Amino acid sequence: MYEERFLKQGGIIVEIHLVGLGKMGLNIAINLLEKGHSVKAFDQNTAVAKTLEEKGGLFFSSLETLLARTKSNDTEAKIVWLMLPAGEITKMVMNDCLRLLKAGDILIDGGNSKYSESKKHNEAFTAKGITFFDVGTSGGVSGARHGACMMIGGNREVFQLIEPIFASLCVDNGYVFCGEAGSGHYLKMIHNGIEYGMMQAIGEGFNILHHSEYDYDLEAVAKVFNHGSVIRSWLMELTQNLLSQDADLSEIEGVIASSGEGKWTVEEVLRLELSAPVITQSLLTRYASKDEEKYGEKVIASLRNQFGGHAMTKKGE
Amino acid sequence: MYEERFLKQGGIIVEIHLVGLGKMGLNIAINLLEKGHSVKAFDQNTAVAKTLEEKGGLFFSSLETLLARTKSNDTEAKIVWLMLPAGEITKMVMNDCLRLLKAGDILIDGGNSKYSESKKHNEAFTAKGITFFDVGTSGGVSGARHGACMMIGGNREVFQLIEPIFASLCVDNGYVFCGEAGSGHYLKMIHNGIEYGMMQAIGEGFNILHHSEYDYDLEAVAKVFNHGSVIRSWLMELTQNLLSQDADLSEIEGVIASSGEGKWTVEEVLRLELSAPVITQSLLTRYASKDEEKYGEKVIASLRNQFGGHAMTKKGE
Repeated sequence: MYEERFLKQGGIIVEIHLVGLGKMGLNIAINLLEKGHSVKAFDQNTAVAKTLEEKGGLFFSSLETLLARTKSNDTEAKIVWLMLPAGEITKMVMNDCLRLLKAGDILIDGGNSKYSESKKHNEAFTAKGITFFDVGTSGGVSGARHGACMMIGGNREVFQLIEPIFASLCVDNGYVFCGEAGSGHYLKMIHNGIEYGMMQAIGEGFNILHHSEYDYDLEAVAKVFNHGSVIRSWLMELTQNLLSQDADLSEIEGVIASSGEGKWTVEEVLRLELSAPVITQSLLTRYASKDEEKYGEKVIASLRNQFGGHAMTKKGE
Repeated sequence: MYEERFLKQGGIIVEIHLVGLGKMGLNIAINLLEKGHSVKAFDQNTAVAKTLEEKGGLFFSSLETLLARTKSNDTEAKIVWLMLPAGEITKMVMNDCLRLLKAGDILIDGGNSKYSESKKHNEAFTAKGITFFDVGTSGGVSGARHGACMMIGGNREVFQLIEPIFASLCVDNGYVFCGEAGSGHYLKMIHNGIEYGMMQAIGEGFNILHHSEYDYDLEAVAKVFNHGSVIRSWLMELTQNLLSQDADLSEIEGVIASSGEGKWTVEEVLRLELSAPVITQSLLTRYASKDEEKYGEKVIASLRNQFGGHAMTKKGE
């Protein structure tokens, strides 16, 4: 059934309806267009329309018009790719898609949704005969543009029909079909948990070097770490890049945001009652980095003062 | 002074006296020989002599004969490269070298010595007019053989005279001169600290996947992580390699040894009073992995039992 509907022009999918043209979505769109796909897209921010159009895409000013059925396309199945911030926005657009799409269509959530939400979304779409895929996307903005890494959960048979999309978007060997719906976002969640830990290890190591008795050229250090060492990695390349631009990091606040994946990983660790202290601590370090109030530290400093008469610094002193 | 003594044959160092032909040393020897250097070597294990000789090296059965001054070489300065287990063995051989070498010679410690020891060794050799280098080597056995990563501390002027050795041994851009003696091993120590943290993050992540509700092909997971993802890295490639050979890890004990670098990193963190929880926890996880007795866990289980009447499993139950 899908073959007739989707596999036009020698097995290449021709039309993808992309929802969300942020940093990731716009680069996915351009990547798809360069690989010969047709892209129709919607974003609330109309300022990106020009860029999309210059690359050959069609911009729509509403989800309704993007997904409208007309006489000419009424029998075609639509492939819709969401590239939206996880959470409420994704949920809202999903609900609209549930209303606008029909049986035989495909809905791909390429954002960083929580896997348990993706399981619920899958149920809702499956009930309407729409095939749902949860796709975890790694590789950052440059990956979205030039070749990403994707982890795909959903129906295996339908996946095989739309596999050329992933072959177009990803680097060689850069996508994997993981299993049932939810497994793609689950894998991306754990990927990000590992990423938190690797980043924290790099941050701690360079902090020690920064405070050491030796006057290291830390850009040269990151560079040599990337050439033949055991810890060579893309994250170390990004570290080298950072240090080449701002060696003393004077332009950056030491405050680390988090998008949710690390938190979900730790929630999953608790649910499974496993031990993952490094991933957990990496998350907590991010939270601590945002804590300007230091309420807990105040309690501890005061306790030391009370029981041992240890000095405690009062504000303004 | 060094130019005349070392830089023969168009600026290429011709003779290196290598002490220690273990996994790393033998591969360093072969690597040097293939790059056109002359290698004389000693190891207590005479079984490696044949391999060395087949590659064109000369094997000596004692340090004394290796470093002997004869009429023909009495005026030449010697370059001695130690590739020995850190600690007592290195110290013993260092003492022998202090006795056997003379002013103008060069002693390179390519092992994983503690940086504070290397500072002491530097003082001892410098007092005798011998130039000391501490060289941290990364890249594992394959790196030693085909191109390593080296972090070098010592005298900058003398380093420039023997730099072709490092260019021969390392991958392109794979060595860095770090500064005064001690800074090479210090950097290698922190490198290994980062390595501990990255490995721990990978281990934790794959453990969660192993226990998850999804039936992941973990070799395929590691493979996709290596193609376009943010966490692509040499350690992830080794993970992929491992999972391709033994997917359920049934052949491996979950016990992690450590060679000292991680412990020294944490000691340094304490000395500098810094926070490096992930590197620290990665070390403690290794120690815990070796703890069969679980004395602490017994205490905790018993305390729960005493104050709350919680069940406690007795041996044999």
